[in-house]
Amino acid sequence: MAQRYVRVQSREGQVYYGLLQLSLDVQILDAPPWLQGQPTDLSLEPDSYHILAPCSPSKILAVGRNYANHAAEMGNQVPKEPLIFFKPPTSIIACDAEIQYPPHSQRVDYEGELALIIGERAVDCTPESAQEKIWGYTIANDVTARDLQKKDIQFTRAKGFDTFCPLGPWIVRELNPGARLQTFLNDDIKPVQSACIDEMVFTPDFIVSYISQVMTLLPGDVILTGTPVGVGPLKLGDRVRVEIEGIGRLENTVTSR
Amino acid sequence: MAQRYVRVQSREGQVYYGLLQLSLDVQILDAPPWLQGQPTDLSLEPDSYHILAPCSPSKILAVGRNYANHAAEMGNQVPKEPLIFFKPPTSIIACDAEIQYPPHSQRVDYEGELALIIGERAVDCTPESAQEKIWGYTIANDVTARDLQKKDIQFTRAKGFDTFCPLGPWIVRELNPGARLQTFLNDDIKPVQSACIDEMVFTPDFIVSYISQVMTLLPGDVILTGTPVGVGPLKLGDRVRVEIEGIGRLENTVTSR
Repeated sequence: MAQRYVRVQSREGQVYYGLLQLSLDVQILDAPPWLQGQPTDLSLEPDSYHILAPCSPSKILAVGRNYANHAAEMGNQVPKEPLIFFKPPTSIIACDAEIQYPPHSQRVDYEGELALIIGERAVDCTPESAQEKIWGYTIANDVTARDLQKKDIQFTRAKGFDTFCPLGPWIVRELNPGARLQTFLNDDIKPVQSACIDEMVFTPDFIVSYISQVMTLLPGDVILTGTPVGVGPLKLGDRVRVEIEGIGRLENTVTSR
Repeated sequence: MAQRYVRVQSREGQVYYGLLQLSLDVQILDAPPWLQGQPTDLSLEPDSYHILAPCSPSKILAVGRNYANHAAEMGNQVPKEPLIFFKPPTSIIACDAEIQYPPHSQRVDYEGELALIIGERAVDCTPESAQEKIWGYTIANDVTARDLQKKDIQFTRAKGFDTFCPLGPWIVRELNPGARLQTFLNDDIKPVQSACIDEMVFTPDFIVSYISQVMTLLPGDVILTGTPVGVGPLKLGDRVRVEIEGIGRLENTVTSR
């Protein structure tokens, strides 16, 4: 199994980056791994920590309409350039944390996505040089208040509510380009979303290059790479699980605010 | 003169929050003032520091079309609710730093604005309780690639380039509601923008309340409150100066990237 890079909070409230062992012990690193954090002698047992989102980005970018079949289901064309938008850091929650359904919306959708973690400062990268800026991969759910997205035009509010960016549970360094992304609701065996990562219109390298020509990307920044066909509504009490082969499962429940 | 709260970098590269004295010495605080930073015995002389943007926000929100006469000049209606969008922290530059004209755009505009600095965590505030979350006020220039704003629909790229958020030069705690905002280009005596802050459609209290009902605002977060009529293009070599009575002047020059 690939090395799993986590961020955890100990019972005492300390936040650490670490390596998740098969025993579920977490070996603590002395810094974020993309800042050359090294293993320490300290380790946390499974009942002495809980998992946080695996990084704490200075910004989150996301790409819209990056799978042709999702663009089509929303009645949109595939854009000529990546359609980029922000989600605020305050929207991040960890695996197993609760998505809060805001009273502003009557229609909140899941959107399973692959997320990129930036490892080093990226400015004006070519697609060729962008690959080395991607430190690893995790799973995200780009939760979206669909009714407000249509009403507001700007995505800020629809995609910016607290809890609207489940992220995790951990980061892996390598990803098979043909890895499958699937989203499941509750106990259903049939996924509501199922696509291969390589169906993306714009590749991770191209996206990082594109964004880096507009704004500086910093270590720990996160980029959500878009969702495939099959988005749909969440209701109170739902459990939503996004899986990516070679990474793992990101599961969250939906509660009222 | 009102107390001026600054953030500076010493010749040795240390970053400090401080109080700017009439002598232009900076008395160092031991933390950001909104986190109860207290004056220390340390002080920096004018030739031993340079001014940074006065805070380092976890996020920057901005409000579009918040002056009726600017909405009209852009051919837009005044919205029924605040139109909110993000600028990334990487877009911030200090007073006297250079706005870099990106090769992507043929039309980059200045937008002089009042900026609010959040002093404490704000969630689900009423307009009445929002006032106490506003720690102070500074000046911003919401630099915008107008051609990309029209083309992209989402404002992310048009308003998100590095250097597109001049901010400062300092923060003051109080502001006269009738204070005048003016923007000047180069040596022109006639301002290109001139409006009173109280011409805003949505007041600072209302804006903070509105945003806090969507996402948690954190200490040091920044909210740009919109620009009045008179926006227009910048060209290479231009100096643009935004002034707000009771705060000061934010001046930046435009260079190529």
